[in-house]
Amino acid sequence: MAAREPEFAKVVVFGTGLIGGSFALGLKQAGAVEEVVGFGRTPATLRAAQQLGVIDRAGINPAHEIADADIVLVATPVAQMPEIFARIAPYLGPNTLVTDGGSTKGDVVAAARTAFKGHIGKFVPAHPIAGAENSGPSAARWDLYWGKKVVVTPLPENNDERLDRIKRAWSLCGADIYELTPEQHDRVFAAVSHLPHLLSFALVHDLAVRDDADLFFTFAASGFRDFTRIAASHPEMWRDICLANRQALLGELDSYRAQLADLHDALAAGDGARLEAVFDIARQRRRAWGGQD
Amino acid sequence: MAAREPEFAKVVVFGTGLIGGSFALGLKQAGAVEEVVGFGRTPATLRAAQQLGVIDRAGINPAHEIADADIVLVATPVAQMPEIFARIAPYLGPNTLVTDGGSTKGDVVAAARTAFKGHIGKFVPAHPIAGAENSGPSAARWDLYWGKKVVVTPLPENNDERLDRIKRAWSLCGADIYELTPEQHDRVFAAVSHLPHLLSFALVHDLAVRDDADLFFTFAASGFRDFTRIAASHPEMWRDICLANRQALLGELDSYRAQLADLHDALAAGDGARLEAVFDIARQRRRAWGGQD
Repeated sequence: MAAREPEFAKVVVFGTGLIGGSFALGLKQAGAVEEVVGFGRTPATLRAAQQLGVIDRAGINPAHEIADADIVLVATPVAQMPEIFARIAPYLGPNTLVTDGGSTKGDVVAAARTAFKGHIGKFVPAHPIAGAENSGPSAARWDLYWGKKVVVTPLPENNDERLDRIKRAWSLCGADIYELTPEQHDRVFAAVSHLPHLLSFALVHDLAVRDDADLFFTFAASGFRDFTRIAASHPEMWRDICLANRQALLGELDSYRAQLADLHDALAAGDGARLEAVFDIARQRRRAWGGQD
Repeated sequence: MAAREPEFAKVVVFGTGLIGGSFALGLKQAGAVEEVVGFGRTPATLRAAQQLGVIDRAGINPAHEIADADIVLVATPVAQMPEIFARIAPYLGPNTLVTDGGSTKGDVVAAARTAFKGHIGKFVPAHPIAGAENSGPSAARWDLYWGKKVVVTPLPENNDERLDRIKRAWSLCGADIYELTPEQHDRVFAAVSHLPHLLSFALVHDLAVRDDADLFFTFAASGFRDFTRIAASHPEMWRDICLANRQALLGELDSYRAQLADLHDALAAGDGARLEAVFDIARQRRRAWGGQD
């Protein structure tokens, strides 16, 4: 077999942990990238990323690294993205595309518009759905994205060639690509991810602050364990996600609170038929969705 | 080793499935019971229980089976207990003790008082914490209760000998015995079990009834899966539990709704510090409770 030219001569990742590091390793595994340059919060993290083979070298100055990059992936916490966009904006080359790994999209797009202005067409937003229990370069895996979903949320300014190129990069990492508008994306993830985290944190907190909290936790069992597993998630990260997706999350929270008010009234009235109807619809849908577990 | 006399000559179980059947098998495995007689909803269930060795024979008429029983375990859904208590009440012998496997206690105790009247001291309420995913005689296992908690909620009328005898029976099945008052029990389980089920059902229902429900379920991931696993629970059973423990559950639901109102306000105000404080307390407590999972 003749040696192939890698599709991407240079990829720059901001954030060399689970999301960014796995993107780098996935492209390397596919033989699709010649050089990966990493930027990170600390020199120690970047040294670790280099030693693990996640990046080829650490970047020092964006002014020297962005113009000739094919793809820049910003895979930091969402709250840090506006600053990074502003730092790289002056150096985007004619063929440079930017994508991100943020779990909210409306706010990321707004920050990108502010920073990239007339070059916003070079930014193709993305959200890889790939968990976040572990972090740091040692959590990066070349096969993290295999069989996972990556949601791309194209902007009107993205032409087809640019959109396809970013989709292609995520595909090379093994991901299945989906398209949503940024607004759809934020509403969907508010409902199926951000709200459940908020609700789980809320339940554990409500018990934890009681004087007799120990009594409750002594008898908590497997249902409680499953329901509250996500309450062990990272507080700072989830604070940022909730704030970043505030409008959509408030909408979902309002809808859920109305649902609880309805259940409260049914319970207070002893309306077993209403309770059973709600439980039954939920159970049927839950089983249809995830019958295997 | 000389052959031991079994501690219990005769045990009667109402309900020969997971809870009642495992109690029978646990006592048999311990060599602690001579004969187990089962009552159940259908002859087919009782035949299966007998074929599986869960019971020695099916009972026909409580009038002939209760007076010489050492222990009667009522392990049916809570909603059926009042009728069963009424059926057996006339036949309690001088040494007959009654216990139950219900997951609520206040309502069961009230029903028992109505049925047993001056003999209420013979009823020692219990709640084995042993899951409920599977049901029927084939779900019964002799080791179901090994290392599991059984909460006994003594009544003022239970003397020490009777209380010890019921605790002993559950211990022989391998359970760790805890004591709570019926009121403590119902408050604790409203908070750590009944409310989480209600909340999980509510979230799935809120999404399931939308016109674009499919869009949401397409992107639901592992956090959603854990949070909603208990929404696949049995609707009729959970309707009954919610109604049976209505007062305590309404109290817990009110407390939780106040917590959500607080988080709603913090979110609307962009108060990241407040969100992070709540998330952080929840995470610390969740990790301290179940750091292994």
